[in-house]
Formats: sequence, structure tokens, C-alpha cells
Amino acid sequence: MSPELIHLFDLPGKTVVVVDILRATSCMTTAFAHGIAAMKPVASLEECRALKEAGYVIAAERNGEKVAGFDIGNSPFSYMEPALQGRKVAVTTTNGTLTIAKSMAAHDVLIGSFLNLSAVARRVTALNQDLVIHCAGWKGSVNAEDTLFAGALIDLLLNDFTLGADDATLAHALYRQHQDDLPGYVSQSSHAQRLQGFGIMKDIEFCLATDTYEVVPFMQGDQIVASGN
Amino acid sequence: MSPELIHLFDLPGKTVVVVDILRATSCMTTAFAHGIAAMKPVASLEECRALKEAGYVIAAERNGEKVAGFDIGNSPFSYMEPALQGRKVAVTTTNGTLTIAKSMAAHDVLIGSFLNLSAVARRVTALNQDLVIHCAGWKGSVNAEDTLFAGALIDLLLNDFTLGADDATLAHALYRQHQDDLPGYVSQSSHAQRLQGFGIMKDIEFCLATDTYEVVPFMQGDQIVASGN
Repeated sequence: MSPELIHLFDLPGKTVVVVDILRATSCMTTAFAHGIAAMKPVASLEECRALKEAGYVIAAERNGEKVAGFDIGNSPFSYMEPALQGRKVAVTTTNGTLTIAKSMAAHDVLIGSFLNLSAVARRVTALNQDLVIHCAGWKGSVNAEDTLFAGALIDLLLNDFTLGADDATLAHALYRQHQDDLPGYVSQSSHAQRLQGFGIMKDIEFCLATDTYEVVPFMQGDQIVASGN
Repeated sequence: MSPELIHLFDLPGKTVVVVDILRATSCMTTAFAHGIAAMKPVASLEECRALKEAGYVIAAERNGEKVAGFDIGNSPFSYMEPALQGRKVAVTTTNGTLTIAKSMAAHDVLIGSFLNLSAVARRVTALNQDLVIHCAGWKGSVNAEDTLFAGALIDLLLNDFTLGADDATLAHALYRQHQDDLPGYVSQSSHAQRLQGFGIMKDIEFCLATDTYEVVPFMQGDQIVASGN
């Protein structure tokens, strides 16, 4: 439910699905669906900026907003630009990149969002390892949209997996309760309300649509890549 | 949702309700309802044992079981003994006492359980401060029964408070979904299943009954006390 709790889980040998619905992992899914070559998540603005000289497009978000001086921020629409096809992107965000960094002990680290929900479920089943769904939250706090995604993914996996902890049961119950109106529920959440202040309602609606894409980005070394799918 | 997340909350000036349904705060509620004078929560078995010489009854639980050499463990029924009336009890448990220790920056720290749910809600409203419900969980992990209690308390307070964070929304949704069958839901949870292994189904059923008692224990210095109510 939060990167602050991930140390409670034993990751080696497992699959981790990293989730930051608003908006890091939704952006990553969109970026690969639109043809970028690779994405390098980094912790600091400085590291990200330095990669510009190495030929990377640089993307940075802090506290929900694009950081001045970077090529792009954290809107999925900015990743639809044809000019990004075949390019490498270096990215740093408030919550998502930290969540990836704290997942790296796993055997496989996948990038999940509502945009590729069913494709992620199929990949998780094919990998046939225990699963930890790692929600980015907001600066350590539990958030509604990432927990809902966890519940949605659990719902697709119930035939193949058993629930191993109470937080999974809880996330699934939340999803079952709100599955017919995800945008309605999420728009009441504190994080969505915070982001609405930045005028990105269009982003939020886009990020809550299910199965827009088939691509499942995954970590390979220190970069995110995607197979042809 | 966990003592591992409490550092994300600003406690000074607020009311904290500490919750460890199975079974520390249920025991504390029961103990004061049955007339103990005071309770001193301590972190270690050694500290607890040392208080025996100072005239305390000593109670210790680790990993769900009574620790050998202590007077009592962590069953609410053990606190119903007439011999405990007017006595002081020193107590250490796996999760509950740590959760209390991590709550002490608050202005008021109350002990909550289903057993005194409505009385806690009335006290919280009377105190008229922002509220943090601090769930003990299980060794840092989120658990079902403490989150359910948080949702139940939120449900009673909705007329007087607004929800400040997504975890509160989530707990409330969980409670609303399962309010008609708390024992059924909790008995599926990982922690309840762990405890059932110790043959304490009777304890679990007792701890999920609502409003058995009116007493609201609270921290006064380093001890838990209760006013006459």
C-alpha cells in the first residue's frame, strides 16, 4: 500500500507490479504504447538533467507539476508525441521512481496501470511467481487510485492466486465496491483533488480507462523496456 | 493503517485513538471495565518483568501467545478476574504497546476497540480536535480488524468530521461493505487465522462485539487510566 511498507515483504524470486496511477506508471505505459525505445527512472532532478547530454529526452515531475527546464512533465498526453518514437527518456517523479527503486530486489518488475491492466494480469500469470503489487501512494501515504488498481488486478488473478495478506483483501474489497464507478470514487480522493488543482482532469480520466493498451513495460537492468507484445 | 506510517501524520494538538483489536486494546477496555486501577504499557519483556517488584500485575504477549513467567497474557477473559480490581497492570504486547508509544506526541491518546466503540466516538466528538486513528496492524503490516474498526469509528463521526486522507476513505468503504458480518470477514483475515491456531476463537468473537462497555481508557503520563465514565 506504500513504499514505506515494502520492507515488510520479501521480494527475491517474486514478481512486483509497480503502480502509480496518477501518473507515473500510466505515463510509462502510454510512452511504450507510442513507441519510445527505453525509459530510465532516476531519483534526483540532477541525475535526470545530466542524462540530456547522453541523448535522453528528460522528464521530471515534483509535487504534481512539470519541473522547469525539463523536456516533459508527467502527463500521459505528452508521451504521445511522434517525436518521441525510438527515443530514450530519463524520468524522475515524486513517488513512482522511488517505488521502482524499492522494487528492484524482485525477480521481475512490471509497470502496471489501468491502461494495461489485463495485459499485466496475463503477464503475471505467465511468470507464475508470487506477486507483490507495490503501490506508490503519495509521499508515503496510502492513496485511493493505486489501491483500487491493486484490487482490480487481484480481481483478475483470483483464479490463479490466493490472497496472502490483509492488505490484498482490503484492496480487493475496495475495488469490488467501486468497480462500476472508478472515476467517481477516485475524483473524491485527496490526491485526485490535489491534481485537479493543476487542471489535469483530462489526465485523470485518461488514466482511469481500462485496457487502452496491450504493452507491459518491465525493468531490464536499470532501464524500463517493453517487448513487442 | 500501521505504526510504520504514523510518522506521516502530524500528531501534536490532535486526538489519537489507538486500535489493536486482536487483542491489546480490547484487553485494555475489558480490564478497565472490570475495575483495574491503571495500566502501564512498556516496550520490553524486561521492563515489564521488573515492574512486578513495584507491585504491578505483569502481562506479556509475543507473537499471539502469553509469555512464560508472566501473570497473564493477552486474553480479554484474563482481565475479568475479580482479583485484578484496583490493581495496576504492566503490559507489553507485540503490536499494541509500540503503537501507543508512537502516539504519545498527540494531545489526547484514547484506547479504542469494538467493545467501547460508541463511547470512544462520543469522547472524540467532545474533545473536538482533529483525529488520527492509529491501527496497530501486525508487525507493521496492515490488518483487517484494525482497519475495520477505523471504518466503524469513522462511520459514527461522519456528521462531525470530514475525511482528511485516502486511507480514511478506504477504511470506511471496507466497514460499509462488511458491517453486517464483521466476524465473518475478520475470521478470513490472516491475523485472525494466525490466532485461531492458538485456539482463541472465543477471544476473537468477544473482541468483535460492539459496545459491550462504556469505559474509554486514555493515556495520562506514562500510564493508561480511565475516569468513572
